[in-house]
Order: sequence, then C-alpha cells, then structure tokens
Amino acid sequence: MVDIIERKRDGHALSEEEIRFFVSGYVSGEIPDYQASALAMAIYFRGMDAKETSILTNAMMHSGETIDLSEIDGIKVDKHSTGGVGDKTSLVLGPLVSACGGKVAKMSGRGLGHTGGTLDKMESVPGTKIQRTREEFIKQVNDIGIAIIGQTAQIDPADKKLYALRDVTGTVESIPLIASSIMSKKLAAGSNAILLDVKFGSGAFMKTLERAKELASAMVEIGSHLGRDTRAILTDMDQPLGLAVGNALEVKEAILTLQGKGPRDLVELVKRAGAIMLEQSHIVEDLDEGERRIARAIEDGSGFHKLVEMFQAQGGDVSYLMDPSKFPLAKNIFPVYANRSGNLRRIDSLAIGLSAMKIGAGRATMQDVIDMSAGILLNKKVGDRVNKGDILCYAHTNKSGVGAIIGEIHDAFELSDEPVSVSPIVHAYIR
Amino acid sequence: MVDIIERKRDGHALSEEEIRFFVSGYVSGEIPDYQASALAMAIYFRGMDAKETSILTNAMMHSGETIDLSEIDGIKVDKHSTGGVGDKTSLVLGPLVSACGGKVAKMSGRGLGHTGGTLDKMESVPGTKIQRTREEFIKQVNDIGIAIIGQTAQIDPADKKLYALRDVTGTVESIPLIASSIMSKKLAAGSNAILLDVKFGSGAFMKTLERAKELASAMVEIGSHLGRDTRAILTDMDQPLGLAVGNALEVKEAILTLQGKGPRDLVELVKRAGAIMLEQSHIVEDLDEGERRIARAIEDGSGFHKLVEMFQAQGGDVSYLMDPSKFPLAKNIFPVYANRSGNLRRIDSLAIGLSAMKIGAGRATMQDVIDMSAGILLNKKVGDRVNKGDILCYAHTNKSGVGAIIGEIHDAFELSDEPVSVSPIVHAYIR
Repeated sequence: MVDIIERKRDGHALSEEEIRFFVSGYVSGEIPDYQASALAMAIYFRGMDAKETSILTNAMMHSGETIDLSEIDGIKVDKHSTGGVGDKTSLVLGPLVSACGGKVAKMSGRGLGHTGGTLDKMESVPGTKIQRTREEFIKQVNDIGIAIIGQTAQIDPADKKLYALRDVTGTVESIPLIASSIMSKKLAAGSNAILLDVKFGSGAFMKTLERAKELASAMVEIGSHLGRDTRAILTDMDQPLGLAVGNALEVKEAILTLQGKGPRDLVELVKRAGAIMLEQSHIVEDLDEGERRIARAIEDGSGFHKLVEMFQAQGGDVSYLMDPSKFPLAKNIFPVYANRSGNLRRIDSLAIGLSAMKIGAGRATMQDVIDMSAGILLNKKVGDRVNKGDILCYAHTNKSGVGAIIGEIHDAFELSDEPVSVSPIVHAYIR
Repeated sequence: MVDIIERKRDGHALSEEEIRFFVSGYVSGEIPDYQASALAMAIYFRGMDAKETSILTNAMMHSGETIDLSEIDGIKVDKHSTGGVGDKTSLVLGPLVSACGGKVAKMSGRGLGHTGGTLDKMESVPGTKIQRTREEFIKQVNDIGIAIIGQTAQIDPADKKLYALRDVTGTVESIPLIASSIMSKKLAAGSNAILLDVKFGSGAFMKTLERAKELASAMVEIGSHLGRDTRAILTDMDQPLGLAVGNALEVKEAILTLQGKGPRDLVELVKRAGAIMLEQSHIVEDLDEGERRIARAIEDGSGFHKLVEMFQAQGGDVSYLMDPSKFPLAKNIFPVYANRSGNLRRIDSLAIGLSAMKIGAGRATMQDVIDMSAGILLNKKVGDRVNKGDILCYAHTNKSGVGAIIGEIHDAFELSDEPVSVSPIVHAYIR
C-alpha cells in the first residue's frame, strides 16, 4: 500500500491491480484509514486519468451488491442530480418520462445540510414507503413504469467508507474521487442509461461552470467506458429551482408543474432533461420530438396521473395529491420584505438552503427530524423587478424566534440597479 | 482539523495556533491518524515556509521533555549525522572536540536497515552503558567534557508518533517534515550549538547534493530561528566512510584514527567538522586554527585519551581500547575478489550497508540482535587502481551460506576504464 501511495504521490497512473487492491483492502479493513486518506490526498493533487477513474469506479461499484434490472423489459433510464436547493426535478421528470413510455427505476437519497432529498419529499405524502425489496422494486417498474425508492444498504460499501473519510480529511473536492463516488452508486443501481444533472453556483457542490463541466465530463467518460449511455446537463444553481424550497412545499410545486402550472425554469429543465432521457430510452428520434412529447404529457395530464400511480404503488395517501390543500401548513408564514428597490440579480441558493434547514425543512446531521411543512416559498425570481416593500418570499415554519434567520433570507436576495438578463437554466449538454 | 488540512491543501501558510493545535491534538490522540496523514500529504505537496517549519519544530520539541544543560558550564556543542554507511564520525570527532576543550553532550541513536548507529557501536565495547539519567549525563560532561548516551524515552513524542505514521503513508520525503523531525529532537536535547552532517549519495537518505542542500538549509534556518548556532556540512556518501562497516570494526577504526592511523576521508571529515565545532564553542577564532587544534589532538594522543575516559565513565572495559585485538573476530572472513581490472569509480554504499546488515552487522527490524563482530572491511577506496584478482574488501561474518551476499558486495564496486578523480569528502558548508 505504501508503494501505491508513493506511486500516485509521484504522479504515476495506478494499475488496475493496484486500484483493486486498494478498494478491496480498504473495504475489508486490511488497509487502515490513515493510508487511505494519504492516498486520497495524493489523488487530490495528482488526479487520475480516465482509465484509472473508470477502474476505481468499477472496483467501488463491485464492492457491494449490484442491482440486476434485467427482469424489466427495455431500457431503464436513471437521472442523478449532484444536489441543489428546491430541486424537485425527479418528482416531475420521472413521471413525465414514464408517462411517455420510459422505464424509470430510480434509487434516490435523503437531504443533508442545505440540499434536499427526493426521499424526504416523498415522505411528506403520508403512508409513502421508500424502503422496498428488490422484487417489489422490479415489479413496480414492470407494472407502472416507475419507482423511486431508497438505496439498499448493501450498495457500494466502498463509497460509504471512503466518502466518510474524505469528509474529514479535506479530500472531498477531487474530480476523480467525486466522479467515481457518484458513478459507482449509479452504476450499481443497474439502469442502462443515466442522465446527470450537474448543478453549479452558490447552492451547488461545484461553484463554477468550469468545475461542473470537468466533473460532468469525467462522469460521462466513466459511464461510457463501462458501457452505459451516460450524458450530462449543466444547470444553474445561482437561484433555487422553481419557487418552493422545503419538502411538502416542493411536492405541491411538483403537482402544479405536472398540471401545467409550473415555474418557468423548472418546466424548461424537465422538458430539456426529459427529451434527453426519452432519446436515451430510444422512444424518440431527436430532442425536439422529445420536448414535444414531454410537453404533451404535461398538457394531457398523463404525467400527473403517473405521479399518482407511483405514490399509490408505494402506499402513499394520494388524496393529498388530488387535493394539495390537505398538506398541513406551518403555524407561521412570515413574509420577507425588500428594504430597497432594484432588479433581482441573484438569489444565494446556499443561504436559502441553509435558512430553510434552520427553520425546520432540513437536517444539520443525519439524526435530525425534518418538519415536512417548513420551507421557503419564493415570490420573486432572478430578472424580476422588485420595489421596496415587495414580498421577496415567505418563510414557512413551526418555530418562533427566527428573526435572525429571516434577516439572512432577506440578504440572500441580491438587487441591482442595472438591468438583469435571465440566462437559460441548462447551460450545456455533454454526451 | 479539516479546516487546517484544507488550508494547507490549498497552499496557505498555517498559523502558529493551527500548527500547535495539530501537534498537541495529535500527541494527545484527539486528532486521528487519518487526518494527520492527510495533512502530511498536503505538506508533501505544498511545503511549509521557514516560519511554519520553525513553529512546527518548536511545537514538536515541546511535545515532551526538553533537556536543560545549563548546569554544564560553557557552550555545549552537538553533532548530528543524517545517517550513513561506515559513519563512525561521532566516536572520533566527539573525543577530539572534547580534548580541545569543547563540551560534547550528545544523545545518539541506534542503527536500522543499511545505516549504523553510534550506540550500537559503543556497545561493542563490553560493559558500556548508554542509558544514563539526566544527572549522570550532566555530571559526566562536567567531569570529563563528553558523554554520548541514548535518548531518554520522554523526548519528542510528537516526532515518534508522526514519523511512524509518515513511514507507512508515503510522506517521509518532505523537506519540512524531515527537517522538523531531526531538529525537534536535536533542540530538545539541549545543546547550544549544533553541527549537522548531511549525507548525500546512494547510501544516504538524500540521494542528490541538491536535495541534501535543501534539507541542510531548512535545518540551519530552523536552528537559527530558534536561537541556536546551527551549521551544516554536506558530505559524500557515494562510498562508505573510511574502511570499516560494522560495529566492532568501526570502533577499531575510530581507535586507529585517534592514534593517527585513520583513513584519509575520515580524517579529513573530522578535521573539517571539528574545526567548525571548535569555532561554534568559541574556542578558536577561525577554521584554520580549528583544524590545527584537531590535528594536534590526534598527534598528541589527547583525543584517544578522551575516548578512553568516556568509555571508562560509561562503564566500558577500556582494555579493549588499549588492545583492540581483544575484540572477538568473526568466525569467517571472506575476501571479495575483483573479477576484472579498472579504476574504482564508486562503491554503492546502500548495497554495502544492506549486505553488512544481512551478514549480521545490522538490523532489518528494531527487534533484531546485532552481531558486533560482523561487517565489511574495505581494501580499496574510490580512486584506487584495481587489478583482476585483487581483494576489494573482506566480509566478516559468523554466518555461513552467504555466497549470494558476497556476490552483492562484489557488485557494489563499480570499476571504470577511465581515470577517476577523487572529490573532497565535504562538498559544502552552510551556516
């Protein structure tokens, strides 16, 4: 192991044998944490080429169970977001792709810190079960074309152990390590085609478009190397996606979007992403046709119907979907007022995400309990004109004494005297 | 701690507070090995400036006991070698400097791998005690001007723990980490003035003159920063020093050298180094005067007398020094013959050191027991003419079945058809 560390430290590419030795030895406990962290730091500085990264991903993917989805007919397509604020995309996109004939067999995660998680959002609908057996998972996709469930505990133990170590040793921000971490889980989850939604901006893991492109390219290369149709879009996280941030609030927004009343940026994103996923599923010939199909699935209500079917199949009380006023509202709904006028230039997603967490919508640690009704509902988006005294957003919370947090939310809105142009949500498409 | 790792990883200089937090937290066990190794790797890549290195050294030095030598009058001068093959310098230089009036209060180490240790060599004289209390140590230097003893266990626990970690995480070869490791121990040992003998070449830790210079400069800077007169010489380890490699063999060579019959390179080294130490002790005005004083201490036998006094004070049977034929000889003394003719261009010190270890003179691990009589006695030195069939050296061993090792020893002698020039042993002097 010392040789392996030194070879990477000195800038050499590691061999397949060396990488496999590391991953299996680390998972089994034969290689101690202190050697793994030294190697991770050497990789941070020296990087890994495409071949090494693919080998690492493959070794991590096979460190635990891999899901065999071959009992589901056709192309199974998965979408993965690197994590954002107000990112309810899966709950809109999954049903739409499925309504158009796609097979969506998706394993999702929980929220932590300023980012939310699809599983938490789903649980805001009472009764919804996200822990399913492999058999139930496969049966549901075969029956209705979509299932979104929690990861089984046996997937990718190498990533669990390595990520926990990287988190406390300053070795998180390494493109090959991030790429292999994400891709090993996605590949283990068994879909044939993967669309990656790589966010960039203040609320995203990658702060700049450039870094996000690097990560996206690395992941697309890994996926292609390992025989999966892998593509990526780069999307803007310099304001929260849509208007709602917080679990029940986001589910309600997903419902509205599937009913044709969604916010512009979210609708644009699901059309673009959905078109790609339909092309990956060989359902449409090109992206234009794909976008038309997604738009139609919104208009004709088939997407919304698929959402209802999915929740029903997973035990959720779908009366909440039919009548979203049933979702309990938070005790306090505080308007946040603009204290000056200007054009809204940026909404600091990180600040919004953290504030939403603090007022109950998220977790600081995995042990925290989420308040499903808490969150922030935007009233203004980037590009909007704001007059002094206008309501910027509403903070929904069951807590009191949140004055300081309301101040932080206010300060997340950056006003400018200059005209503001709105950029498209999808900045690039990598395949 | 994660912040500290990330700051170093991103190329920032660490503050005094951060470095102290790391050293005390690591020694106490609050900071785990895996964070320390990640930081060490970040330091490997990013380095440390002179100020950081001094702070680190100071923090390590104060992680344990520091020796107060103030009860010894005058300037206490210490010498430290970075480790070589056949390096019996301390046993010659210490007595000579002491005979000229210097106060030599030296803590030395044991051999490991291809390098020998002064303590092991001293123990080849029966009865010699190298574990002394602080009081005995100080009394001996006050009485006779010299003591060479083992490090007390309480010195520099930070270095012990960190070095063991670096050894298994590919983070040994970092100049600031090497420099702080050596200097923290030397400074804790309490002398006012320190001469560093930094070896370079195949048998040395630093393989090139350039790297050795870097290390020497870093250490001199640390010492000066922390208020000690610190200087360094850079000496050639592209052949073993002198003729003898192995414990009793080297003690016999030290005796011969103190009796005016030493090999050219060793005599040159002790004159140059001794002159510097006498200047550091404010005993001589300049190096020329210093060299003359050292030469006189050889000629008049006062250096040899001091060696005898030192061993006597430490319980050694000095009849061995008066009559070196009393040292037991190894059962087998194998001549190693040249199988071709040529000019001796280089003797691979690493190969000689490892071979000497294998035939009994050293330790592969700290648990191994040394055979005091084993070793290699050179018959040719770099620059000598060698004819086919000449004896290159003698291997002294109590082992049998060492044919392969004899072959390795033979191959350590590199012959050339070109004329070979002999470079001086001391390549540079840094102060």
